[in-house]
This record gives sequence, C-alpha cells and structure tokens, in this order.
Amino acid sequence: MVIVIQCKDGVGLVAAISSVLANAGFNIVSMREHVDLQESRFFARIVVDKISDPQNIEMAITKVLAPDAVVKVDPLPEKKIVVLVTKEHHCLSDILTRNHFKTLGASVQCVIGNHPDLMSITERFGIPFHLVSHENKSKENYESELMDKILGYMPDYLILAKFMRVLSADFIASFKLKIINIHHSFLPAFTGANPYRQALKRGVKIIGATAHFVTDDLDEGPIITQKTISVNHSFVLADLIKAGRENETAALAKAMQLVFEDRVFVYDNKTVVFE
Amino acid sequence: MVIVIQCKDGVGLVAAISSVLANAGFNIVSMREHVDLQESRFFARIVVDKISDPQNIEMAITKVLAPDAVVKVDPLPEKKIVVLVTKEHHCLSDILTRNHFKTLGASVQCVIGNHPDLMSITERFGIPFHLVSHENKSKENYESELMDKILGYMPDYLILAKFMRVLSADFIASFKLKIINIHHSFLPAFTGANPYRQALKRGVKIIGATAHFVTDDLDEGPIITQKTISVNHSFVLADLIKAGRENETAALAKAMQLVFEDRVFVYDNKTVVFE
Amino acid sequence: MVIVIQCKDGVGLVAAISSVLANAGFNIVSMREHVDLQESRFFARIVVDKISDPQNIEMAITKVLAPDAVVKVDPLPEKKIVVLVTKEHHCLSDILTRNHFKTLGASVQCVIGNHPDLMSITERFGIPFHLVSHENKSKENYESELMDKILGYMPDYLILAKFMRVLSADFIASFKLKIINIHHSFLPAFTGANPYRQALKRGVKIIGATAHFVTDDLDEGPIITQKTISVNHSFVLADLIKAGRENETAALAKAMQLVFEDRVFVYDNKTVVFE
Amino acid sequence: MVIVIQCKDGVGLVAAISSVLANAGFNIVSMREHVDLQESRFFARIVVDKISDPQNIEMAITKVLAPDAVVKVDPLPEKKIVVLVTKEHHCLSDILTRNHFKTLGASVQCVIGNHPDLMSITERFGIPFHLVSHENKSKENYESELMDKILGYMPDYLILAKFMRVLSADFIASFKLKIINIHHSFLPAFTGANPYRQALKRGVKIIGATAHFVTDDLDEGPIITQKTISVNHSFVLADLIKAGRENETAALAKAMQLVFEDRVFVYDNKTVVFE
Repeated sequence: MVIVIQCKDGVGLVAAISSVLANAGFNIVSMREHVDLQESRFFARIVVDKISDPQNIEMAITKVLAPDAVVKVDPLPEKKIVVLVTKEHHCLSDILTRNHFKTLGASVQCVIGNHPDLMSITERFGIPFHLVSHENKSKENYESELMDKILGYMPDYLILAKFMRVLSADFIASFKLKIINIHHSFLPAFTGANPYRQALKRGVKIIGATAHFVTDDLDEGPIITQKTISVNHSFVLADLIKAGRENETAALAKAMQLVFEDRVFVYDNKTVVFE
Repeated sequence: MVIVIQCKDGVGLVAAISSVLANAGFNIVSMREHVDLQESRFFARIVVDKISDPQNIEMAITKVLAPDAVVKVDPLPEKKIVVLVTKEHHCLSDILTRNHFKTLGASVQCVIGNHPDLMSITERFGIPFHLVSHENKSKENYESELMDKILGYMPDYLILAKFMRVLSADFIASFKLKIINIHHSFLPAFTGANPYRQALKRGVKIIGATAHFVTDDLDEGPIITQKTISVNHSFVLADLIKAGRENETAALAKAMQLVFEDRVFVYDNKTVVFE
Repeated sequence: MVIVIQCKDGVGLVAAISSVLANAGFNIVSMREHVDLQESRFFARIVVDKISDPQNIEMAITKVLAPDAVVKVDPLPEKKIVVLVTKEHHCLSDILTRNHFKTLGASVQCVIGNHPDLMSITERFGIPFHLVSHENKSKENYESELMDKILGYMPDYLILAKFMRVLSADFIASFKLKIINIHHSFLPAFTGANPYRQALKRGVKIIGATAHFVTDDLDEGPIITQKTISVNHSFVLADLIKAGRENETAALAKAMQLVFEDRVFVYDNKTVVFE
Repeated sequence: MVIVIQCKDGVGLVAAISSVLANAGFNIVSMREHVDLQESRFFARIVVDKISDPQNIEMAITKVLAPDAVVKVDPLPEKKIVVLVTKEHHCLSDILTRNHFKTLGASVQCVIGNHPDLMSITERFGIPFHLVSHENKSKENYESELMDKILGYMPDYLILAKFMRVLSADFIASFKLKIINIHHSFLPAFTGANPYRQALKRGVKIIGATAHFVTDDLDEGPIITQKTISVNHSFVLADLIKAGRENETAALAKAMQLVFEDRVFVYDNKTVVFE
C-alpha cells in the first residue's frame, strides 16, 4: 500500500506519521522524503508491507498533521485512464500493447479520437473507441460532448497521446493535475508548431520530448519527465520526426509509470518525482 | 548533518529514529529508507537541517535500536583519502583536479605509487607523492611499508586509481569496506587481464567499467557503480583503451561522490545506493 | 538504391566502383567505406540517387573487383521476415505494431510459435500464426516441420523474438547470417539461463541485451547491437526482468533496422555496422 | 593522412577524387561521404594509408573539381590552440590535463584570461598564461591587445573555455569558423544569462550544453555537439551548476576532438559531423 503526503514543513512530521503507522502495525518497506527548503514544503512517499484499511489510516495520518496536509492512501488498485488521440498512432500503440499485457500500471477504459484514424488499432485490442469530432461545433459543444463521454468512465487520469486540440481552461480545471500530455519538444526549446522543422533548420544534435501535466498555460504545465535522443546531419525531416516519435513514446510511457505508481507530486508549477 | 543506519528490520524503526530526532529539535530535510525484504534488513539515510552534537545523537539513536544496528552520524567534514596508483594517469588526474578545485568531496592526503611515473603530475598540484616500490621485496614487506605510509595519514578511504597490484587478504581486512577500486571492465564480463583485447576480438558494441569495494575475492567485491560507453568496428585496440579510460574515470568519480556523501550501504556482498 | 560490397582490400577499389556508378549516371548521395587493416578487408555501403537496373549494376561492379567480392545491389524493397516466438510477448508486440504502421522496414509474413500463447496478439494484427510444437517429436522432425513452414514464405530473415529453442547446426546453416536473435544479457556476461537471477545476486547496476546473428556456436554469433539500462538495489527479480524486457525490445528493434537497411557486414565473427 | 572536401554536388565526384588517389598509390582506409540534397552540397572525409606529399595531392584533387571546391589535405600534425578563459576552471582543467598527457589531439600554446584567477592552474602545467584585462579599455583596444597576443602563437583554433566576454563581429571575422565556444545551455532553450536559474524555476528534468562555432550572431553559430544530463527536484541551484559544468566539460571535449580530427564541416549555419 502506498501513502503519499504533501504539507507545510515542520519539525517532527516523519515521527508523527511513522508513529501512526507503527501503532497500526505497518512495516515501512520503502520511504522517500524531501523538503523544499525554499518553499518550506514537505513531500513523502511511503510504501508499507500490507494492504489494509486505507480510509482509517488516511484519517489517522491527516489528524496528526496541519489542516493544509494532503494525504492519500492508495491501496494500489490499477488506475483507470481514458486516452485522447488525433491521428498519430505511436503513443497509442504503445499504451494499447502495455495495457493488453498488463504492464501499463493502469487500465484503459476507452480511447476517444477527434478523427477516426485510430479506431481500427484500438478495436483490435478490444478497447472501445469513440469518435468525438470537433468539426462544425463550437468549442463549448465539442468539449461538453467530450466531457460526457469521459465522465461515463470515471477515469483517474486523461492521457493526451498526441491529441492535437487545445483544451479550454474550464475543461482543464475539471481535471486538475489529472491530464498528462506529451509535448513534441524538449521544452522550453521550440515551443511552437513544427518543432522538428525548426530543429532541422537550426541543425541541433539532440532532440527531446517532454511529458507534463496540463495546466491552462499551454505547454507550461509541471514537467514530469523529459527524454532526449541524438540526431545528426543525415536526418531529413522525416527521419527527425520518426526519431522524435520513438522518443515521445518512451517519455510518455515513463511519465505514466511514475504517475500511476504515485511517485509524482506537484507544487509551485514544478514536480517532485521519487523515482 | 547526515545520519546513516543499517540494522535488522522490524516494525516501528522509522518512528523510533525520527522521534529521537524530533525530540532533539532536528528537522529531516531528506530521507531515504529501504528494506531488503528477503534479507529482512533495514537501511536509512537521513539528512537533517543542522550540524549539532553528532556523538549524542548517534548514541540516542543506537539506544532505541537492536544491538546489531550500525549508526553513523556524519557531521559531513570532508573525508580524507589516500590514492594508490601505478602508471596510468587518467583517474589520478581527475582526482587531483577535483581536489584542487574542492569539488571532490574529499581531501587527498597523499598519492602513493609503486612506480615513479605519476610523481610529477601529483607534485604539480602540491600533493605529496610517495614511491613505495614492490620490487625486490616480499609481498609482506611491501604491504607493511605501504601500510606504514598510509596509516601516517589516517585516511577514511583508500582509492585504487588504476593500482595494478593485488593486495593480500590481510591488508584488505585492515581497511574493511574502505578500499574503492575501479575495474577496467563491465563486471562480470572480461574479468581477466586485457579486457580490451578480449572486447575487440569479440566485437562488442559497448564496453563498461565497474567501481567496487575491494574484498579478498578479487574483482568480486560489492559493486558501487557501473558505466558503459558505445564503441564500434572502427575502434582499434588503442581507441578501445582510450574510450575505456574516459569511462573508468567517470565511473570512479561517480562512485567516490556516492561514498563520500554517505549514500552507499553494503550488505551480503551487494550495495544499497541512495542516489 | 543501396549498394553493399565486401571484398579483399586493395588500392583503387573506391575509384573502380565509383567510376562504374558515375558512368551509369548515378549520383552517390551517401557513402561509408571502412578497411579492416588487420584483416585487409574492404567494406562499403553506397546510397545512390535513383532506383534503376539493379542486376546490371551489380554485375558491372562485380566485374571490376576480385573474384572474392560480394556485391549486393538492393533496390530497397521491404525485406520479408518470419518471426519465431515461444511465450514472451514483448519483442513480438513491438514488431507487430511497427509492421502494422509500416515503420519496421520489413514485412512480417507470419509468426511461428512452439507454444500457442502468442496466437491471439498475432491474429489481432491480421498476421498468420502457425503453431509448430516441438513436443513429442525428434529435433529433426521438429526442425523439418519448422523449415517447411518457413520456406513457404521465402523470407529474407528469420527473427528469433524470444524463441527459446536451440536450433541445430544444420538448420542454422540453411539460413546463414539470416537469423537474428535477441539475447537476454550483455554478452559475454551471464551467458547461461537465468541471467536476471545472476545479475540480482551479483548486485549489478546495469543490465544489458545483445542482438546478434545466430551461428552454431550458441550465443557466440556476431554482435549487431547492444543496449544497457540502469538498475538499482530496489529492483526485485520481477523488476529486473521487466526492465530487461524493455531493453531487449529496444535492442532487437535497433538491430532489425540496421540489418534491413543493409548497414551490417559480417567478417571474422564480428560486424561492421555503418550507422 | 586526412583529406576533407566540400563543394557543389554533381555526378562523378567520388570517382574523380578517388581516381586521383588511386593513381597516386594511396589506399583509402576510411571514407565518409554525404550529400545535402536540398542544398546540392557535397561533403567528404577520406583517410588514406600513408602521409605523403600533401600539397600536390591537394592541388591534384582541386584540379578535378569545380572552382568552388574547398579541399584540405591534412597530414594530421597536432593542431595548435589558444585557450581564452575568465574565472571558471572546469573546462580549462580538463584541457590542460588532456594536453599534458597528449590525449587532446592539439597542443595548447597559451592560455589568455581577462582575470588572473586561472593563472595558477595553467602554470602548474607549464603553459604560459597571459592576463589581458578588459578593464578601463575600449572594446577596440582590448580586442586589439588580445589579437596581438593570439597572433604571436599562430593557432589553428581559439577555444573559448568559459570566456565570458562578447567578441566583436570584426574580431570573429578574423578567425572565421576557427573559434569554438561552449554554451551553458541546451540551445535554443534558455539562451540568456543564468540558464541554470531559469532551468530551476521551470523544473526541467534534463539540462544541456552546446559546443558551437562562434559567428557574429551571438549563441547562434553552427552547433558541433550537444550533451544532456539528468537532474531532479533535489537539485538546488548550486547542484544544477555543478552538474552543468561536468556536462559543459564533456561537450567541449567532444567538440574539440571532432574538430581536431577534421570531422566537422560547416554549411548554411549547420554542421556535417562524420563521427
């Protein structure tokens, strides 16, 4: 069972929390604690040896902490996710394969596309695919339809697996720190469209990808993980894009694993990641 | 101040230890705890916010733990090291440069060589160099002379920076888990002499280096860190050796940093490393 | 169009070959040449700007070289492959996905398993799956049945994607340097069964995987590519295996790309790889 | 002996060049050729088996090519370099050590600083150090003094090893594509001052460094190599800077090796690098 805690820092927090656990007979098999001294902020991830009575433990820990504390006791059931896509398949294929063989750490409830291109691959894996087109609709209507579909599945996280629509602030607010995006660049370089074309023109030797939580500041949400890959003069645009896609797939897979295992905390638009 | 603890596992250890610290008014700014469930072994590294009264804290923590517990409260003075070398300069040069600019995390007391080749580079940095030749001496006499020189400096660690003599079990026992060696291979591949020649013949695409504590089982001590580097068909033997040396230098530098920062625990011929 | 040449080295080979191409009106857009001076062996890979008349070019180049020369002019149609599997899915899933989206650089003709476990995933992608069981058969009969199935597809390469049977020297001789295997270790370390168990016991900090051509010297064929991945004390056996599988998948994918793009030459049980 | 050629592309260039070499009795032991099809630009690097008569070979090759061709036959003597520094030692220390042990591929003629901080380390290695202060001088006078010092050594390349002055367009024009700089960022991210502070605030998980030729467009010259290094939430500013410095040192060392071995071509503000 995993316990994650974020709160204002102070003397004695580890003692208070671990005493609750010891009194309840839990053995701590792995623990990470970090204090951001500048922000006076406390973060902890604790793994205990058995799964038992999560709600009561959560309450008992909350009681010994200040009122601002966020405590989550996760008995580690699989997370439920909904995947949003457009036309590019590379991240989705990887997610479907991991889901199929139970190595994703989450269970894909459905895939929703604003184009039908990825319906076939999704259904090959026995996962429902919903086409929610944005065409000939106001943004409001589109997002309302999208929201309805999503809420029917009650997912823990939304994964934007090369989903090419910009979501409104209202929509994002409904899934605060629950939307994970893969950005086709090493942020903050090449933030705009066509980063690969820009990278080609600049003659860079490394390209990157960034997985981050979505906030209403486009491409500026808290970074979960970044990966880079070497390129060289022999890469034409198509090669850069191919290499970039492999890298995006790997970065998103890593970010999902970290989040689904409750290893990622957000504060002040940054993350604390206990790898 | 850093506190490291190793002992038999049990329920309540984190609570017991952190209560001692809370009562003494310390704030835990970073903590890593790991239990080896198979061995029922507890490891913790705790960083607290101030340096104060290390002996008393050590005693107080020891008192709440079982008698087998090893507790070390390290007020983080620089470690003192003695470096043993033969003829190859690459690791020594790196150590001397880091030492000169105070980024080593340790203070080089002296360099001891069984050949005079590295006297000049050592003295350029104002560090004493002692020539202790092994020639025309019994192993016993050689090691006794070596030991005398070393003990005069009371080092925390001995660094074998491409030191090409095999040390006796007795000598090693005098510095138990205090001797760090860099092995010119990705252990356990190519354990013998001339690993680069073997790697060339086998046509490998990656070569490695292993930094480990020295035990009397040659090249079989607990591994601290390993690094690899890509090679290809265009590498002749001299190129492999050059690439290998860069890699050895990096691996030893990393291992020293981990050890000097009290991040490495040894148990059952393996290490727990809190990076 | 790609032209690959291997022959005994001598003065004037590049001039002779490139003159043939210039006279035929080809522009060389990329060229790699390497001489193994110790073996006096010449290797070249030439990419020209158009696809035209491969047989005649092959003959024309062969004519200007010594009789031992091996010249192959590849108009770069997709290679055809047959994939052999047992029970583990990770490499096969990756191959099927890449095949489905045309990024494999080869076309999967069929998958043959000695167990039925991977039939479902294969058929989801519309690829034929043949069960050729080894049970209750002599090795000779098993391999003869396997051979019949394979020959029906006339593949350019056989991919052993975690195929856990040892093939006979005769079988291998029928597909000389046409069988690619992924070995679950950083060869030559941990060559036996259960490399992950061995790695765990030894406490290594890096694990590797090796993709190689199969020769009748088990696990000793020419290495195409190797990859490594970092691990640490927190990995139990299942974690090591999971990390190892991701690494195996990546290593095999890379090796296939190199081979399918005619970038790999073999000589003296080693490879020359023009990446 | 290394031969490098850059010119407008056309059919028959490899044949023409290699015929000159074959007629002169040279054996090509390694060759890389690349055509930028978009720019119709030809690049080749040829290694031949002996060192002989470079000027005549250079003339003979030039004669068979169009007038725009740039041909350089380099008998591979060590390059001569002058190193410019300010106060930070990490790149300089690495250069001095490599120079001392003859693994730099170049010979350091002198070090010039605009501050005296690095005089001591330089002189420990027996290399002349010149203090050319920029204080109380016009930029023109400062650069003129700098130029005089440099020209006395007739270097092949100037290395800016954390040299913190911006050079004028005129100065740079005097050393066209002969000045190598290390930039403390993964260009084009964080181009300004204090990239580490920006990286900390943004919470990035990777930081980079870029080695590039200096042109009068500040930080926008052709990129030679880039390296990245992983960081995490536990890094305070000093840790980021320390990690960044290790990375800068490695990137500059790699770039120098590539340039000194005549592996780098520049065209259209980008590089072709034959690694």
